[in-house]
Amino acid sequence: MAARVGLWMVGAWGGVATTVATGLSALRQGLSEPVGLVTAKEPLASLPWADWGDLTIGGHDIRETTYAAEAQVLWEKSRVFSPDLLNRVADDFAAWDQNIQPGVLVNVGDRIRSLAGEKSRSYLAESPLQAIARIRKDLENFREQHRLDRLIVVNVASTEPPVDPALAELDWPQLQKLLGASEPIKLPSSSLYAIAAFECGASHVNFTPSVGTDLPALSELALTQGVVHCGRDGKTGETLLKSVLGPMFAARNLHVNSWVGHNIFGNLDGKVLDDPANKATKVKSKDHLLTEILGYKPQTLVSIEYIESLGDWKTAWDHIHFEGFLGTKMAMQFTWQGCDSLLAAPLVLDLVRITELEARLGSKGLLPFVGSFFKSPMGCSTPEFATQYQQLVEWAQLRQSQFEKK
Amino acid sequence: MAARVGLWMVGAWGGVATTVATGLSALRQGLSEPVGLVTAKEPLASLPWADWGDLTIGGHDIRETTYAAEAQVLWEKSRVFSPDLLNRVADDFAAWDQNIQPGVLVNVGDRIRSLAGEKSRSYLAESPLQAIARIRKDLENFREQHRLDRLIVVNVASTEPPVDPALAELDWPQLQKLLGASEPIKLPSSSLYAIAAFECGASHVNFTPSVGTDLPALSELALTQGVVHCGRDGKTGETLLKSVLGPMFAARNLHVNSWVGHNIFGNLDGKVLDDPANKATKVKSKDHLLTEILGYKPQTLVSIEYIESLGDWKTAWDHIHFEGFLGTKMAMQFTWQGCDSLLAAPLVLDLVRITELEARLGSKGLLPFVGSFFKSPMGCSTPEFATQYQQLVEWAQLRQSQFEKK
Amino acid sequence: MAARVGLWMVGAWGGVATTVATGLSALRQGLSEPVGLVTAKEPLASLPWADWGDLTIGGHDIRETTYAAEAQVLWEKSRVFSPDLLNRVADDFAAWDQNIQPGVLVNVGDRIRSLAGEKSRSYLAESPLQAIARIRKDLENFREQHRLDRLIVVNVASTEPPVDPALAELDWPQLQKLLGASEPIKLPSSSLYAIAAFECGASHVNFTPSVGTDLPALSELALTQGVVHCGRDGKTGETLLKSVLGPMFAARNLHVNSWVGHNIFGNLDGKVLDDPANKATKVKSKDHLLTEILGYKPQTLVSIEYIESLGDWKTAWDHIHFEGFLGTKMAMQFTWQGCDSLLAAPLVLDLVRITELEARLGSKGLLPFVGSFFKSPMGCSTPEFATQYQQLVEWAQLRQSQFEKK
Amino acid sequence: MAARVGLWMVGAWGGVATTVATGLSALRQGLSEPVGLVTAKEPLASLPWADWGDLTIGGHDIRETTYAAEAQVLWEKSRVFSPDLLNRVADDFAAWDQNIQPGVLVNVGDRIRSLAGEKSRSYLAESPLQAIARIRKDLENFREQHRLDRLIVVNVASTEPPVDPALAELDWPQLQKLLGASEPIKLPSSSLYAIAAFECGASHVNFTPSVGTDLPALSELALTQGVVHCGRDGKTGETLLKSVLGPMFAARNLHVNSWVGHNIFGNLDGKVLDDPANKATKVKSKDHLLTEILGYKPQTLVSIEYIESLGDWKTAWDHIHFEGFLGTKMAMQFTWQGCDSLLAAPLVLDLVRITELEARLGSKGLLPFVGSFFKSPMGCSTPEFATQYQQLVEWAQLRQSQFEKK
Repeated sequence: MAARVGLWMVGAWGGVATTVATGLSALRQGLSEPVGLVTAKEPLASLPWADWGDLTIGGHDIRETTYAAEAQVLWEKSRVFSPDLLNRVADDFAAWDQNIQPGVLVNVGDRIRSLAGEKSRSYLAESPLQAIARIRKDLENFREQHRLDRLIVVNVASTEPPVDPALAELDWPQLQKLLGASEPIKLPSSSLYAIAAFECGASHVNFTPSVGTDLPALSELALTQGVVHCGRDGKTGETLLKSVLGPMFAARNLHVNSWVGHNIFGNLDGKVLDDPANKATKVKSKDHLLTEILGYKPQTLVSIEYIESLGDWKTAWDHIHFEGFLGTKMAMQFTWQGCDSLLAAPLVLDLVRITELEARLGSKGLLPFVGSFFKSPMGCSTPEFATQYQQLVEWAQLRQSQFEKK
Repeated sequence: MAARVGLWMVGAWGGVATTVATGLSALRQGLSEPVGLVTAKEPLASLPWADWGDLTIGGHDIRETTYAAEAQVLWEKSRVFSPDLLNRVADDFAAWDQNIQPGVLVNVGDRIRSLAGEKSRSYLAESPLQAIARIRKDLENFREQHRLDRLIVVNVASTEPPVDPALAELDWPQLQKLLGASEPIKLPSSSLYAIAAFECGASHVNFTPSVGTDLPALSELALTQGVVHCGRDGKTGETLLKSVLGPMFAARNLHVNSWVGHNIFGNLDGKVLDDPANKATKVKSKDHLLTEILGYKPQTLVSIEYIESLGDWKTAWDHIHFEGFLGTKMAMQFTWQGCDSLLAAPLVLDLVRITELEARLGSKGLLPFVGSFFKSPMGCSTPEFATQYQQLVEWAQLRQSQFEKK
Repeated sequence: MAARVGLWMVGAWGGVATTVATGLSALRQGLSEPVGLVTAKEPLASLPWADWGDLTIGGHDIRETTYAAEAQVLWEKSRVFSPDLLNRVADDFAAWDQNIQPGVLVNVGDRIRSLAGEKSRSYLAESPLQAIARIRKDLENFREQHRLDRLIVVNVASTEPPVDPALAELDWPQLQKLLGASEPIKLPSSSLYAIAAFECGASHVNFTPSVGTDLPALSELALTQGVVHCGRDGKTGETLLKSVLGPMFAARNLHVNSWVGHNIFGNLDGKVLDDPANKATKVKSKDHLLTEILGYKPQTLVSIEYIESLGDWKTAWDHIHFEGFLGTKMAMQFTWQGCDSLLAAPLVLDLVRITELEARLGSKGLLPFVGSFFKSPMGCSTPEFATQYQQLVEWAQLRQSQFEKK
Repeated sequence: MAARVGLWMVGAWGGVATTVATGLSALRQGLSEPVGLVTAKEPLASLPWADWGDLTIGGHDIRETTYAAEAQVLWEKSRVFSPDLLNRVADDFAAWDQNIQPGVLVNVGDRIRSLAGEKSRSYLAESPLQAIARIRKDLENFREQHRLDRLIVVNVASTEPPVDPALAELDWPQLQKLLGASEPIKLPSSSLYAIAAFECGASHVNFTPSVGTDLPALSELALTQGVVHCGRDGKTGETLLKSVLGPMFAARNLHVNSWVGHNIFGNLDGKVLDDPANKATKVKSKDHLLTEILGYKPQTLVSIEYIESLGDWKTAWDHIHFEGFLGTKMAMQFTWQGCDSLLAAPLVLDLVRITELEARLGSKGLLPFVGSFFKSPMGCSTPEFATQYQQLVEWAQLRQSQFEKK
């Protein structure tokens, strides 16, 4: 268990990644309890997870900044962390800053491109294959420099616009060929990072709504390369509640007439989602769920709006209008006031632990038992949170019994 | 399946019972869809339930009124049902009114006693054993008159004050003896009705927070008599949500610091709960849950207040203060605006169907798989709604496979 | 005071107008208390208002229906009124239905046009001047037939798309000339109705966000014709609250960072506002207020969405994020669950009473003291509700003292 | 205007007082904008207020602590202030700590007494007259030591239990006599502080629900001594909203059926209010308002509960059930998430400024124009916030015109 593990984040200086870095440093130093970590709670807690001290952070980002600067912004705008904590994690921040490389801007959309710094912009003209090669080189340097036993690439970058559905009809040889064409096929950066990861034997976690590994061609590549992956779109707030409350209405045979959800928040993610193209990806990821859970389509409305003063505090208001016995209309409303990065970061650390354990055990392909972490879980048979969580618990119990046998 | 089934409600003219009567008549006549009925949804829907047309309603009530009058009050104060519907169920109402007998006032507390009509008050001096005998006679007359194949007694009466905990240490012979003593032990009416039901071979459902069958002595009697029973306290609103949302906080290892729930409503139940003695029983039933689900005790507060203008519309506001990663405090709030009687009535019909089916199949004793219906489910191994519902589904699948084999 | 008064509604069979008709009939028959009527409360109540019994309803509508049918829809979808009440107002409904004429479709936008019935569509080709002439004829017939002493035209029709700002630069002779041109200037129906009203000496109340009389040319015409008018856009819910709560934040010097308001509802008005062109007019009317009250522009967001299941029940959620002492960010949220037509109708009756009184007294031009009734009050010097209401009270006190002198 | 002003707070190390100290130091040093100060906004801002730099803080407290320690608690529990700000105000904190003297425990109730430190407890046996004499000595020493031109005593201590209504029937000579009796009359500390203040020529502001100066005998004394005073119970949150929203329902003639307000918070004030005796004083102060505003008594419910995790963040949920036209029941709900001390402190500074100005101008007796600051304003003719604020504005305009004349 003294294996060295690399955690490579795409969007390495974003809000979620900065919180992951802050939290990892705090956990290494014993400055904080592992509240919010699913893997810190039984029956998962006793699995032989990688030690926090064995993790090293690196990553790509299109912006140029530092962990200290980004954490300071979170503190000032959203009153999360504390100046004292930030002082104590400063050394880790400085060390990890050294491992961040310029990001890729291939097919990320105008809004994301507008945020890029000079270093990333210097690669604006690179082709998909050049981008993949550059990413691979960065990953391999990181692995070599830190003598890593295992490497996990996690996408926590801003949401890209939707992709051409035709991409889902290609197998890996076809996709690979089209990537190298003189007019290469439009595959967004989130997938290029994943290809590079797979090609150099790294695992991949897609914590965003971007397409990432959610293409048959990439699933194929993961299996060929013998790596594990999972995703898509971390489930932290309103959608988590939909996957928890929706099954209740279904079980009670209460007919949901309409479910309206308005989300407001003010972080960088919000700015990116202010672009209708990027927002479309996100809303789609949030909206398919209820029909799957209920078995019919209620009228739904999902809005996500950038309200600067809220900073990282996502405030959601949901209004659920339902019909009970004898046609009686009733209503449930909730408001959720959660700090997005603080809800997401422990789940990222959970997924890194789980993915690392599976990689260590030699698993390959999609991890189907982590559906409870995602809004649009790949390979998961159910949209209901309780059942998804039960699948995770059963996996943990299975692994536990295997470790005990040894 | 052409068996005749009696549904005997204690609190027969109360809001829940009146809604059961209205709904049953509407279902018999095909005037309404079975929305809100758990048994009308797969995988439960295809079990060989008793036909709505085979059910007859009778019951006890301490007040003197009619279904038509009580339904009119619900319509006027709470705008549920509709005048048109009430016209169409008038014949059933009139027939069922004939089957309602004066209720029992033994150990029901001052508040409930103050609501009693003359007929019930004429029995004020009866001893527990006299009350049991009277109830038995009423039940047997009902069974005979309507040539019933099966009889289900359902408690939907107002909440009684808490009982002496020492009652839980008695076995049936001991309890029976103390009931006949010259200074009889203080057993409330809810249990006397249940004893009478068991003694004449009827099943029992305790839909209220009152103690009812929730005593070892009564469990023993049910087994001896070969009858089935279940309970305690129908889970229709705020507590349902606690059993749905609590597991989410637990699964995500988010630390719940405090959970405050304020309930306001204006029906008769609310007036009874305005008495601190009666309220204590109810609050206890609502408050134990979170500690069981979370594994620790957050600060909790549950209030239930009578606000006349709300009528049958229970409005609950819950404020959940929880701590996430790095000690970050977040909040979720919800408001629930549900019509209590309309939420409860279909569950009563569900429980009648389920109890009747088990009685028909010759089961006896406690039904442990209906935990999802109750706030304080007897014999249920888990406080989590999703797991409770899974138990119901598994029971249904088992029964289905048994019926298919035949 | 036995003068006969005509209340001519544009949008005569819409939700607000149907509720006005129901309410007027109920008030005439003494079936309902005048709750929700500002003029029924002191110091306004004792002014010599026209008797309810002296009012007769007529109007234009582009749809073809009846009051009975529309009231039945409100009852069924939104559970307002009651079948019993609707029976009792049926005779008035039938009489007033006779007074409804086909509406005008000139420049109302595609969405409204799509709702029109055959009779109104038969006038699709009419020119603005033809439309004005037709309206005048309808008004004059109504006046003659019912021997009316005074006639008040009230616009309660659906919201039109915004108009060309250049219209505000024309005086009446210019506008009149351009209306008669071979390619007539694009003036919407709401203004054509007002012109016709003014030309035949009727008063006008614009209860909608449509432009109506809010053009210098029409103000000029009103003065020339010696008629009174007021408007614009009845203030019934969320905006009312903004005009009440905004001044509190201003007075306390609390800095409003953002004010987000999401409105959902499911009546016909909602369907029309689902068209972005029509919605633009409405949102503009709702959004200017805060800047006027606060003296700076906070970030604001106003959404209005059609959610069918809500019927006439407008549900608004507002989230106000404000900064207090030492930069501390705090929040207030509210939800408003109001029945739009039932909130609007008594205000319409109030405005009819007030307008009739002023017309009776020989006033002319804009009524500046009714700002409290409107979202975008014409001629009102303040956006604050309390001050607006004070203006109304002072007007009432002035009139009262004048009447007492006589 | 270079006069030196003493601000003497009773409850000097409490949450409100600590925030006053923090804010005053920040304002003196130009570290913060005067957001939340009513007197920093026109038309009040241009009055010749005392300079922040001319104010010195002193006070009484029954606890023994320091400003630095109390501010640290506020930071840690409630995330208000910031460590950086607290560093910058440390010198002022240290200086002001020197001016805090042991508080008085006469008739404060068990709950408050239980919080007292040793120094205050050493005076447990003192008689009312001894307490008054001790307070006077402290005030006079403070005035002398800092060569103060004017001294304002502000009560920001915890809420005392209600007093004997008979106290309101005494004049000053009677009260004075009974205070000196061998079994002295039960006058609580809040009034003893006020007597001492008046006797040594200091002004008094009662920012709490405790009785303080709200007795005819004390009003008499204030006039005799030629000092000014005002109060009672700062209006910062839920009650502020009642005084803003209530008049809207009244003006619109909407009938309020019920108004339910649940308040939860976790600061020291909350702990004191957890004692039913102390809570009674507070609830009374919060509950009389609506009847005054509406002209009839709706069903009301006010709860205040201590929920530790909330710290200084007062969260209130109000549910307003009202009846509109044709008996239609509608609802408004709001939640208020405000930081109590941060809302109160700027109002304390406002009242100090206003009181100092009036004292400087030689006014005496009750200040009737500051009703907008208080829940139970003494001498104020109206319960409506807008009218109360208008009275303040008119006072400011009057004073402004007087200053301009000179």
